[in-house]
This record gives sequence, structure tokens and C-alpha cells, in this order.
Amino acid sequence: MSEVSQDDISGWLPPDRLEWVRRKLPMVYVDIVPVRIDARGVVRSVGLLLRPNRDGGLSRSLVSGRVLFHEQLRDAILRHIEKDLGPVSLPRLPSGLQPFTVAEYFPTPGVTAFHDPRHHAVSLAYIVPVDGDCQPQQNALDLAWLSPMEVLDPVVQAEMVPGHAAIVRAAMTHCGLA
Amino acid sequence: MSEVSQDDISGWLPPDRLEWVRRKLPMVYVDIVPVRIDARGVVRSVGLLLRPNRDGGLSRSLVSGRVLFHEQLRDAILRHIEKDLGPVSLPRLPSGLQPFTVAEYFPTPGVTAFHDPRHHAVSLAYIVPVDGDCQPQQNALDLAWLSPMEVLDPVVQAEMVPGHAAIVRAAMTHCGLA
Amino acid sequence: MSEVSQDDISGWLPPDRLEWVRRKLPMVYVDIVPVRIDARGVVRSVGLLLRPNRDGGLSRSLVSGRVLFHEQLRDAILRHIEKDLGPVSLPRLPSGLQPFTVAEYFPTPGVTAFHDPRHHAVSLAYIVPVDGDCQPQQNALDLAWLSPMEVLDPVVQAEMVPGHAAIVRAAMTHCGLA
Amino acid sequence: MSEVSQDDISGWLPPDRLEWVRRKLPMVYVDIVPVRIDARGVVRSVGLLLRPNRDGGLSRSLVSGRVLFHEQLRDAILRHIEKDLGPVSLPRLPSGLQPFTVAEYFPTPGVTAFHDPRHHAVSLAYIVPVDGDCQPQQNALDLAWLSPMEVLDPVVQAEMVPGHAAIVRAAMTHCGLA
Repeated sequence: MSEVSQDDISGWLPPDRLEWVRRKLPMVYVDIVPVRIDARGVVRSVGLLLRPNRDGGLSRSLVSGRVLFHEQLRDAILRHIEKDLGPVSLPRLPSGLQPFTVAEYFPTPGVTAFHDPRHHAVSLAYIVPVDGDCQPQQNALDLAWLSPMEVLDPVVQAEMVPGHAAIVRAAMTHCGLA
Repeated sequence: MSEVSQDDISGWLPPDRLEWVRRKLPMVYVDIVPVRIDARGVVRSVGLLLRPNRDGGLSRSLVSGRVLFHEQLRDAILRHIEKDLGPVSLPRLPSGLQPFTVAEYFPTPGVTAFHDPRHHAVSLAYIVPVDGDCQPQQNALDLAWLSPMEVLDPVVQAEMVPGHAAIVRAAMTHCGLA
Repeated sequence: MSEVSQDDISGWLPPDRLEWVRRKLPMVYVDIVPVRIDARGVVRSVGLLLRPNRDGGLSRSLVSGRVLFHEQLRDAILRHIEKDLGPVSLPRLPSGLQPFTVAEYFPTPGVTAFHDPRHHAVSLAYIVPVDGDCQPQQNALDLAWLSPMEVLDPVVQAEMVPGHAAIVRAAMTHCGLA
Repeated sequence: MSEVSQDDISGWLPPDRLEWVRRKLPMVYVDIVPVRIDARGVVRSVGLLLRPNRDGGLSRSLVSGRVLFHEQLRDAILRHIEKDLGPVSLPRLPSGLQPFTVAEYFPTPGVTAFHDPRHHAVSLAYIVPVDGDCQPQQNALDLAWLSPMEVLDPVVQAEMVPGHAAIVRAAMTHCGLA
């Protein structure tokens, strides 16, 4: 295995290798529900990104991504929030890291409620209030702040990446709002 | 029951009546662990009040108190934080109200780890980050901010109201710090 | 208060006194979702009782009831399960007592999602698998075991005591089934 | 990538490849605290395995292991329980899969409380009551059932794999027994 000694240090994976490992073992993911809360801690709105999807259309999605080798969960959560909402969103991470739900994404449809053709991912889901200015980054076209009632609306739910619709419903239920 | 028609509206109880109901049914309580967190959500310190205890000495305690008739849990949490830490502590209430632990205080010692000679109370415990200025109120002599390691120190634990020592340990465990 | 010295010992309350305290302080309640699970722990069915309601009709409901003075939560859960499902239901209580949700029932409609004209109750909700034989007791006319999909059906939801419909939805969400 | 087409189907990894991916991405693990509970759900004893450790001595450990590609968490939990406690332990899996704690094992000591020289693993921890007959399997020399008080004893804690000692403490705290 001498040829891999260099990226062995960094944990970096070239795309073809990442593709390969995605078919070999489950990925660790985080799914983050960004929310605006009021002074009593009640969720007033949920931030949903609008992005091009694999079918050439647009889908609403949560902040989401992979946990890297040697990266702590807190740092992965912060990195993905900064990547998707920008550097001044001022996220408020929970003091404990028990996820409010665990989503198991399978490459085969129908195994669980969560399907992702790319891989098998075990995703820890967190609700994270953001106090600062949030701007859609990279390939996101929009960041919409919808009320709990709006994100539970079947029309909005249908516009979401399927797994994310279920996670948002679970988040609202966790907050006593569903 | 015509003589109680007035306070029937307010839920207010004269001291002797409150004393009586305390022997008739369990009280609903909240126990709050006030914490300072850093930008990654990690608990840096825990706020403990120093108060005269029933034995004529001093004990360290959490923010704690009764939920009133027709009062929501969020409002009870905010009211007790303001009562104990002052009006500008800027508490950050959780978006979901599942307690990290439930403490059952019994008037009889030894039934549970929690003993309170005054009553039987079912207390929902929450970790609440505070961002603002906190000042001890009323009969509290001091508010000390101790590190997670310090609050777990047996000497500090022994200085605490017994039930509160267990709640602080559970809180630190919940945050992965014990 | 000499006239109350006797029931002071037992925590027993005559109906008129109970009526009075129900307007004075929040009651501690437990709401239990009885379930049948398979060998992998997956909920296969949810037990719903059918009872006459206050409007002269019939409603589906969970196992539910008050926590008594000097009664531990575990004992209250067991007592209400036995009261509603009979003595041989073989319930499997959780090893930790953090509720999956906390329901705040208010006598005034609209304060929370939970309304109960009788009182203000703070209810801790638990999912409890039962392995044994369950029979409807007392005033219950029937005990139906419905699949997770069936209990989430809007028709069934509409047949439930309103607060209980929300608790069942939260329970199914907690189990990854909603 | 044509040379990997075969094990692409199975998710099976030859030892050298597994060694390589262990330095490339975090592994998904489960840590299981096997317990005996009484009729009220109270933990009466905790099962600890005794195994040869990497230093040539013996250590006490929990049931623990990797989640495989395309394997659901429930199946991974059941597989590791069967692997470590035998085929008739009759485990009672929780109906919801929120872990009571998440352990982040790092190959570098001191990053978190959890250290594993082999890899970076994100482990979801569950308390699982077992009703049946449990026998140590494979390289385990013994399976000891210790009371909650015994597993928290500093001597026993020192005999455990370090991360597992912390998980057992968190489990007992979660059950209100620490």
C-alpha cells in the first residue's frame, strides 16, 4: 500500500477512490436543520436551500455533508454550515451531541425512508439555531426561511430532497410543532 | 368551595394551602443548569448559586423552581432564570423541551437519589446557555462559574444541594464532559 | 389545617378537593403509547383504547393518567398500564425515564396543541412495548392494535382524543416510522 | 476501477484495503451496553466481556463493532450481540434509534475522551436489555454481570477499555443510576 502513503496523512481521497469507498462502507454524515428561534426558544422559521438536483430540476434541501477523517462532529457541523450559509451565520451548536434523529440513507430504494443513489450513509441530524446573516453559497440559488407550518405543507415537502423532508418533519415534531 | 372562588382564577395559593397541597400531589418543577458555551457549543463553565440552606450553612445550587398553574414550561424556565440570574442573562432556551433527565424528589429519604423534605416533585432538567450578564438575586450570596472539571470535583459536589449534584453530573455526562 | 390530617398521610384526595387543586397547580401525568414490537425492535402495531368521551361519542385514546403523591414514575406507568390493559400485559419499561416528548395540556384551548378542560397537566410520554395479553378494562369498549401506517391515517387521527393524536404522531416519528 | 467490481457487490473488504480505508474516513460503529432489567425496567446488572487486549493483558469491554456497507443499524446491533453473547441472548432493541450518547474515537490520543489507535470511528451507543442465555463467544474469556454500583467502581472502570468505561458511566447516568 506504499502508493497511498501521502494522502494517508491527510485523509484526502481522490474522486475515483472516494467513489470506490462509497461502495465499501457506510459514510458518516450530518444533516443540519438551520432555524431562527425567538427569545423563548420557539422555532420561528426553518432555512431551506434551493439547489439543482440530479434530475435537472430544483430541490429544497438542508445543510448536509460528510464527516471527514479525523474531524470532530462539531467541526463537521460548523464546516458544513459555513459552506452552505456563509461565514457569518453565527450558528448555536447544542451542548450535547445526541442527534434528534438518525437517518440511514441506502443506495437501494425502499430499504429505509432514506434513499441516496451515491452511497450508504448514516447521518446524525441536529437542529441548529443561527443568529447571524445567512447567504446561499456555491451552487445554491436561494435560501428561503419558511415557518414551521410552511415547511410541513405537502407542496413544500414535495419540493424537498426526500430524506430531508422526513428530517424536517422529525425536527418539527421534536420541537412540538408538528 | 365558594370561599376559594377568587384565587381560583389566579392559581395563587396562600402559604398554608400550598403547604397542604405539597402533601397531596406531586409538584411540577424545572431544574436548570446555566452554562457558558464557546463558539463550538462546548460547555466552558457552569453557573452555581451560593445560598443559605435549611441547616444554617451555605449550599451551591442550580436555578430551580415550581411551574405555576397555567404557566408553560418555557415561561417557567425563563421566569426562574430571571428570578435567580437577573433580567439580562440572555438565556438560550432549547427548541425542543425533552429534558435531558427527570429528577423525582421525594419527601422520604432513600426512595430515589433525590430528596426534598418539603414535597414530592417531578422535575424536568434542562441545560440552558446564557450569553448575558448574570447577577445573583434575592437570597443568593454568590454566583460562581466553574469549569466542567471543577463542578465534578468531589469537594464542589459535596457543597451542592444533593439532588443538584446528581443533576450537574448528568448534565456534564449529557455534554460528553464527564 | 387539622381537619386534613388523615388524608395527609395517604395523599388521597376527596373528589371536591381534587377538583379544587386541579385549578391551583399543574398535575403530573404520564401518557403511554403501548406497542407490539418485532425481534428487531420495530413497532408493528400501536394499541388504542376506545372509550366514551365527554361529548357522548366514542374516542380512541392512549394509556394515560395522573402520578400520585409519593408515587414513582415507573410505578405510575405500571399502574396505569395495568388499569387500562389488564394485569398480564407484560409491559417492558424503558431503562431510562427521559420522555420522548412532553405534552402540556391546558384548560384553555389554543395555548398549546394539547387541551384538557379539566386541568393543566404536564405529561411525560413514553413508548412501552407489551408482550403479554392485553384486555380493555373498566369503561373501555375495545382495544385495537393498528399498524403505524393506520394510526397515522387522518381518519384514525380524527377519532383520537386530540392531544393523543399528536403524541402518537410524535411516537411514530421518534421510531422513524412517520 | 474494474478490478474492484466483485467485492463492489458485497461490500467485503480484504484486510489490507480495510486497513487503508481506516486511515481515510471515519468508520460507523455501534457500542452496546447489555443489561438485565427487572419488571419495573430498572437495570439490575450490566454485562461486561473479558478479552485479551493489545497490550497482552485482559480488559473488560462492551459489545461493539462496525456497521457494514448496506447494513441497517438494527441489523448491526443484532449481529454484534449475537457475535459476542451468542445466538440465544434474546435482545430487546429500542423502538427508536436515537443513541443515548455518541462516542467519537480518534486514532490520536487526547482529541476526545475516546481513543482507538486503529481508526477514527463515530459510534452510536445503545442500552439493550437481554432476556435470554448469554455466553461469551470467540476470544472472550468471560462474561460478568455486574451491578450498576460495581460497574461504576473505579477498580472495575480501570479494567475496562477506556472508551467503554466512559460509555458505561454515561449509560448508568442515562438510567438515573450514577
